[in-house]
Amino acid sequence: MTGWVTVAGLGPGDAAQITPEVSDALAEATDVVGYIPYVARIAPRAGLRLHPSDNRAETDRARHALDMAAQGLRVVIVSSGDPGVFAMASALFEVLEERPDRDADIRVLPGITAMLAAAARAGAPLGHDFCAINLSDNLKPFAIIERRLRHAARGDFAMAFYNPRSASRPDGFARVLDILRAECEPQRLMVFARAVSTPDEDLRIVSLAQATPDMADMRTVVLVGNRATRRVGRWVYTPRSARAAGV
Amino acid sequence: MTGWVTVAGLGPGDAAQITPEVSDALAEATDVVGYIPYVARIAPRAGLRLHPSDNRAETDRARHALDMAAQGLRVVIVSSGDPGVFAMASALFEVLEERPDRDADIRVLPGITAMLAAAARAGAPLGHDFCAINLSDNLKPFAIIERRLRHAARGDFAMAFYNPRSASRPDGFARVLDILRAECEPQRLMVFARAVSTPDEDLRIVSLAQATPDMADMRTVVLVGNRATRRVGRWVYTPRSARAAGV
Repeated sequence: MTGWVTVAGLGPGDAAQITPEVSDALAEATDVVGYIPYVARIAPRAGLRLHPSDNRAETDRARHALDMAAQGLRVVIVSSGDPGVFAMASALFEVLEERPDRDADIRVLPGITAMLAAAARAGAPLGHDFCAINLSDNLKPFAIIERRLRHAARGDFAMAFYNPRSASRPDGFARVLDILRAECEPQRLMVFARAVSTPDEDLRIVSLAQATPDMADMRTVVLVGNRATRRVGRWVYTPRSARAAGV
Repeated sequence: MTGWVTVAGLGPGDAAQITPEVSDALAEATDVVGYIPYVARIAPRAGLRLHPSDNRAETDRARHALDMAAQGLRVVIVSSGDPGVFAMASALFEVLEERPDRDADIRVLPGITAMLAAAARAGAPLGHDFCAINLSDNLKPFAIIERRLRHAARGDFAMAFYNPRSASRPDGFARVLDILRAECEPQRLMVFARAVSTPDEDLRIVSLAQATPDMADMRTVVLVGNRATRRVGRWVYTPRSARAAGV
């Protein structure tokens, strides 16, 4: 029996947003590794070992997965959303660089990433060119975040922010809002989408002028429209045409 | 019987990447509308009417869907990939603005968008902050595309390009490559991912210096790494940490 590692995206929370190819990989697995709340989403069954681990243990988790695969086990690394968007896929390849088994049997299976689940609930706020920015400053200095925010605003991209705010860095998101206010008009539409597709789901559509730091936490994805983003009925959307939007 | 419109993402091609909630919506539908090749992916069944239509008929298609829903029909508008990313969701809301039935029963169901399916096949090239840019100039002047490319490059975003090249605008992608060459180093890694998850799938990983316009067509998604994007084995990935990458 040849072992393998599959990095799989579970989507934002609802099992109805897990693709069949991810479900199939989980059905074939002997071992599942991942951050505690993501592994908690996997139904136990005979023959399946669950290995939940703490946040920020990404590289240890990747090593563990590759070690088990080298022993012939079939390992799924679970990520929330999509594994390639601020999640486990990059951590796995970082670890692969250190190792002799670079030809290990690895697959990456995409998932519904949080910004697209949130956008779908709100309408189509990312319907034109957009950026995805991780606001966590664990892995990059805030100066890089600021530079990217300014380029995104000056290019009139819509934006999606992951990890906007945590207890360990309560002030960062306030600084982000200050930068947006310096670059964008006060009427700019924003969506605060918390825990999309779970029982805790909460969606707020506000203007940049109305936005406050406490509207976001680590379960929130924040979307920012471009200059043309509009409301219609209960929806928010970005028109397809830059010409029609008068840009 | 109350009618509804659901805009649903079919993912890039493989049925194993269609979420259960999209399959459920299709099972409940009386009518499916969409661009000819996307409707061709829907299995015929008794009681389901298929309404394929031509490309660039997005607003007519959206009106047709809302008209049928107003008559009590259950209509799914199918998009490839995710309906909120350069697809039918924005067109539907544009049409909704013209109409009296703004409280129509509408849902948007996300799908696996092409850039994330392509990224998963290549490794994790979008593993850090990234932009998605539609290179079609049908709906915006090339000057906007150029401005966004330059901001994306100067912000050191990874990038994903949709609709890079078509027979009607064969020169646009050559201009895009010229702009990238002016802004980025020749070693910058790119992925040309054609028809991902279909039998025609083809993946090429090249440097910016090696890239040529003919590597892309309308079935290709093009990914561009950031300055830190690297190869390991047969994979290409972007490290999670800007510090580690020396930015």
